[in-house]
Amino acid sequence: MMQLYTGNKNYSSWSMRAWLILKHFDLPFQDHFVAFDDFSADGQFKQQLSKLSPAGKVPVLLHDQLAVWDTLAIAEYLAEQFPEKHLWPQDRLQRARARTVAAEMHSGFMQLRSLCPMNIEADLSAVGQQLWQQHAGLRQDVQRVEQIWSEAEGFLFGDFSIADAFYAPVVMRLMSYRLPVTELSQQYMQKIQHLPAVRQWMDAAKREHLFVQADEPYRTSS
Amino acid sequence: MMQLYTGNKNYSSWSMRAWLILKHFDLPFQDHFVAFDDFSADGQFKQQLSKLSPAGKVPVLLHDQLAVWDTLAIAEYLAEQFPEKHLWPQDRLQRARARTVAAEMHSGFMQLRSLCPMNIEADLSAVGQQLWQQHAGLRQDVQRVEQIWSEAEGFLFGDFSIADAFYAPVVMRLMSYRLPVTELSQQYMQKIQHLPAVRQWMDAAKREHLFVQADEPYRTSS
Repeated sequence: MMQLYTGNKNYSSWSMRAWLILKHFDLPFQDHFVAFDDFSADGQFKQQLSKLSPAGKVPVLLHDQLAVWDTLAIAEYLAEQFPEKHLWPQDRLQRARARTVAAEMHSGFMQLRSLCPMNIEADLSAVGQQLWQQHAGLRQDVQRVEQIWSEAEGFLFGDFSIADAFYAPVVMRLMSYRLPVTELSQQYMQKIQHLPAVRQWMDAAKREHLFVQADEPYRTSS
Repeated sequence: MMQLYTGNKNYSSWSMRAWLILKHFDLPFQDHFVAFDDFSADGQFKQQLSKLSPAGKVPVLLHDQLAVWDTLAIAEYLAEQFPEKHLWPQDRLQRARARTVAAEMHSGFMQLRSLCPMNIEADLSAVGQQLWQQHAGLRQDVQRVEQIWSEAEGFLFGDFSIADAFYAPVVMRLMSYRLPVTELSQQYMQKIQHLPAVRQWMDAAKREHLFVQADEPYRTSS
């Protein structure tokens, strides 16, 4: 059985992506929680992670004495291990497009990711309104996200794929910070929110009640 | 024939990665140069790129009326299109490891990447010495790179693979900024530098003589 090590469900967007892929495609795995702290070298998070992966970050997937980390490598590894599950679209061109937008998420959208860290339980709509006015880079990031979503065929490429898992935490951010998006984008966001695996993650995130200062640039308590 | 759009060979580390993969594995492609400028929305770079890719970044690969961008998606696309070339290691576990370190490069090493932008023709050893003293994050990034390289079997996973292409620009940076690394790392760096495709890229970079202010935090002229 595969073992997935994830961080706080409220905050850890990369954990969410890997977990959603495993959960939605019904792959056999056990989930292990490594609680976020201040990420100091001698804190429990880094100490625990250092036993699993030299990169010291979540998520980490253990399988067959192999540790795979970084979400995109986990995604490709799973797609290869379980070809019958079609984690990427089956059509060659669709698959290339799906990989393109997943990779774009993986390496980009830095303004959105740094200014609006995922915080599922929080209502940060007032913060979001300010950020939206102050940061052209944030507006550009969201504009590009909406452009990608505007070509969605239900999910991004027909059935739910790794590409959708990669954008699910963006849906969480747009909700928490209530950033203004088109109706078309809202339809895609609804579709993501109603996915059973996403609901399960969100419910667990809201029940978590672990306030981590290092992940809270805008609140002093939950 | 595939068409690859790349930026300045002296500066564009992501272009270098995609180009090296195509070149080293002798895949049929034409290289198109899109000159870096100040990256303003109405500048020639963004204007030219916007016709190719909505992300507006290099590299972009065009194949069969399909545009693939972001280097990791290009790498996976090529690996899938040319399975006989073994762009990833053939062994399943090695392939998972190779994907892991490539993905780690793709999403991480932010201090190294932001403080030491690639600049092949430049001698930035004095700058490098200062940065090394001032930035613990830079030292940590390089330490992690050296940890990855310390497990190299010649190249990282035997024969040259996508993983090595992903670390080749790091070799360029360590040279330009002359950051202190172990002898073992220097051996790997030598191996990368002597690869014909890398030499060809470096030679072209040194012949380029296009000074781009936006990519030069430390120099006022070449």
